[in-house]
Amino acid sequence: MVLQPHPAAIAQEPLIESGDGHVIGIDIGGTSLRLALADSSGSIVAKWSGSTAGTCDARAVVELILRGVDQVLRESCLPHSALRAVAAGAPGITDVDAGVVIATSYLMGWRNVPLRSLLESALGIPAAIDNDVNLAALGESRAGAAIGIRDFVFLAVGTGIGAGIVLNSALFHGTKWTAGEIGYMVVPGATEEPAERDQPGALESVAGGEGIKNEWRRMWSKDKTALPRDLSATEIFDSAVNDGDPLAQIILQQSARTLAYAIYNMSLILSCPLFVLGGSVGLHPALCSATHTILQQRSARSLPQVKPSALGIDAQITGAIRLALDVALARSERNLPK
Amino acid sequence: MVLQPHPAAIAQEPLIESGDGHVIGIDIGGTSLRLALADSSGSIVAKWSGSTAGTCDARAVVELILRGVDQVLRESCLPHSALRAVAAGAPGITDVDAGVVIATSYLMGWRNVPLRSLLESALGIPAAIDNDVNLAALGESRAGAAIGIRDFVFLAVGTGIGAGIVLNSALFHGTKWTAGEIGYMVVPGATEEPAERDQPGALESVAGGEGIKNEWRRMWSKDKTALPRDLSATEIFDSAVNDGDPLAQIILQQSARTLAYAIYNMSLILSCPLFVLGGSVGLHPALCSATHTILQQRSARSLPQVKPSALGIDAQITGAIRLALDVALARSERNLPK
Repeated sequence: MVLQPHPAAIAQEPLIESGDGHVIGIDIGGTSLRLALADSSGSIVAKWSGSTAGTCDARAVVELILRGVDQVLRESCLPHSALRAVAAGAPGITDVDAGVVIATSYLMGWRNVPLRSLLESALGIPAAIDNDVNLAALGESRAGAAIGIRDFVFLAVGTGIGAGIVLNSALFHGTKWTAGEIGYMVVPGATEEPAERDQPGALESVAGGEGIKNEWRRMWSKDKTALPRDLSATEIFDSAVNDGDPLAQIILQQSARTLAYAIYNMSLILSCPLFVLGGSVGLHPALCSATHTILQQRSARSLPQVKPSALGIDAQITGAIRLALDVALARSERNLPK
Repeated sequence: MVLQPHPAAIAQEPLIESGDGHVIGIDIGGTSLRLALADSSGSIVAKWSGSTAGTCDARAVVELILRGVDQVLRESCLPHSALRAVAAGAPGITDVDAGVVIATSYLMGWRNVPLRSLLESALGIPAAIDNDVNLAALGESRAGAAIGIRDFVFLAVGTGIGAGIVLNSALFHGTKWTAGEIGYMVVPGATEEPAERDQPGALESVAGGEGIKNEWRRMWSKDKTALPRDLSATEIFDSAVNDGDPLAQIILQQSARTLAYAIYNMSLILSCPLFVLGGSVGLHPALCSATHTILQQRSARSLPQVKPSALGIDAQITGAIRLALDVALARSERNLPK
């Protein structure tokens, strides 16, 4: 597929200063794809999003990306030649060196998808890929809640739970590219039964969005709460804070305690002073505040700080933009002698 | 204090080839100090040990070291001028950059001891220091069970529990030099009550040597076991294996399960494929084997390997020797232009 730039974009070409350039950052999710065009300072110029629901084929996702890139360039009156690099976050285990998404969850079901080369072929510019939570950590590290912090952990609490780990100011991936896949962590309050493959892990069964919903349904009865049996994790947290609902408060405390144990264990292992909470559930102020309170009760030893994400839902895409800028810079430095 | 080499050692000086050299590796423990002289290939030429029981003063420890150095040089008929560098492992939190032992346990009670400069002044050669468990990890990495492994964890199970973490083929220390201080880790089966400062942590209360002894005493009764109430952790493990004592088997399984949870959690966080068990309790084959079995039951996901230390009680001192050789090499490379 060849990208056809809009005629208006071609007419604007002289506006692009020589040596300047733009990049594309992409956040590929199980249900939606978010894409942003950013200038060389990392500022977002235009955004686009599309649905990936039911899209299992990686080539279909790349076609969606081409549509989005076309759209943001058109909106910004920029030609395709203004693009220097692209980076994408994938919702699964990603071999950054090989540029391959090794595996995603059942939602997309990818196995060994050479996403980097698919992007490079389709867009004709250098590409890089990483796990989406890792890119969120990179975003917070460069432009969010963790600027200047050498060692920290970004905790994405959404449907499940994952961590992006920055050590010595660089993303840490681990031998099998699975560092931070903590959904299966075993802590008190979570089940000790081994989880089946593709089932939620022990930690996320209590503190992840899907797990919180399930716990609510499991514990729900009419004499315990006046609220309905079907509520999302954030609705439960809202009710705990705004309505003082007793069952919602129990669920909030249970999730926060489990999350606090996970944070405490990671802080012992990594000696890291900061944990940034993100993801649709992790961004709820009640969870962050309750987790912080439980951690403070935990130990007389030096405690890690727990902060909400500064970038919110833009954390992943900001990280993707920063990674794309790194790629563009490395490429221009390699081309300097020319 | 100036070291007085033995006259016999001076007489042997011509035996030392120009450019050759030896180093000293030291393992400072709460009750004993072990010291070794090694040649430039890292092979141990002579060993010495002394008691640190009741020795709280760092200067007294350095005097003990001087006695040991004198002794191993004399035994090996080497002059003091054969020494290129020294490295020591301390049983506490160690700022490697500053060369300062920040804190040790109550046994020695050190606070902010500038051990590196004390060693350099006393011995007149370059020195380096690190935490003792970190040096054991370095030893296993260079000359033991983890040669060629990029990411792994050395678990020292002795009186308490600590970990030395090697990531990207280098020791990882963390922001506060406390990476791997996992004795307080919270896992199912360990108490959820916050521990007091200077008290054993949750994990080591169940799986550390002192904790295992205490658990035995707590659960002991005449109708449960024919064994005495006062047994060490390794004696309990021996009885579990050799005599099939039912209470000893319960204690062994309980310790192994808790240790397996800790290993499992670390393997998720760090994506690291190997855990090496060391320390006086960790070296017991029954613990390693039971832990491995429980881990295998744990998960269908890729499991870390659990191996016994290849260096045994020499792990720390081997790491110290390797660190000293690194220091000597760096120094000789800096001096190359001369």
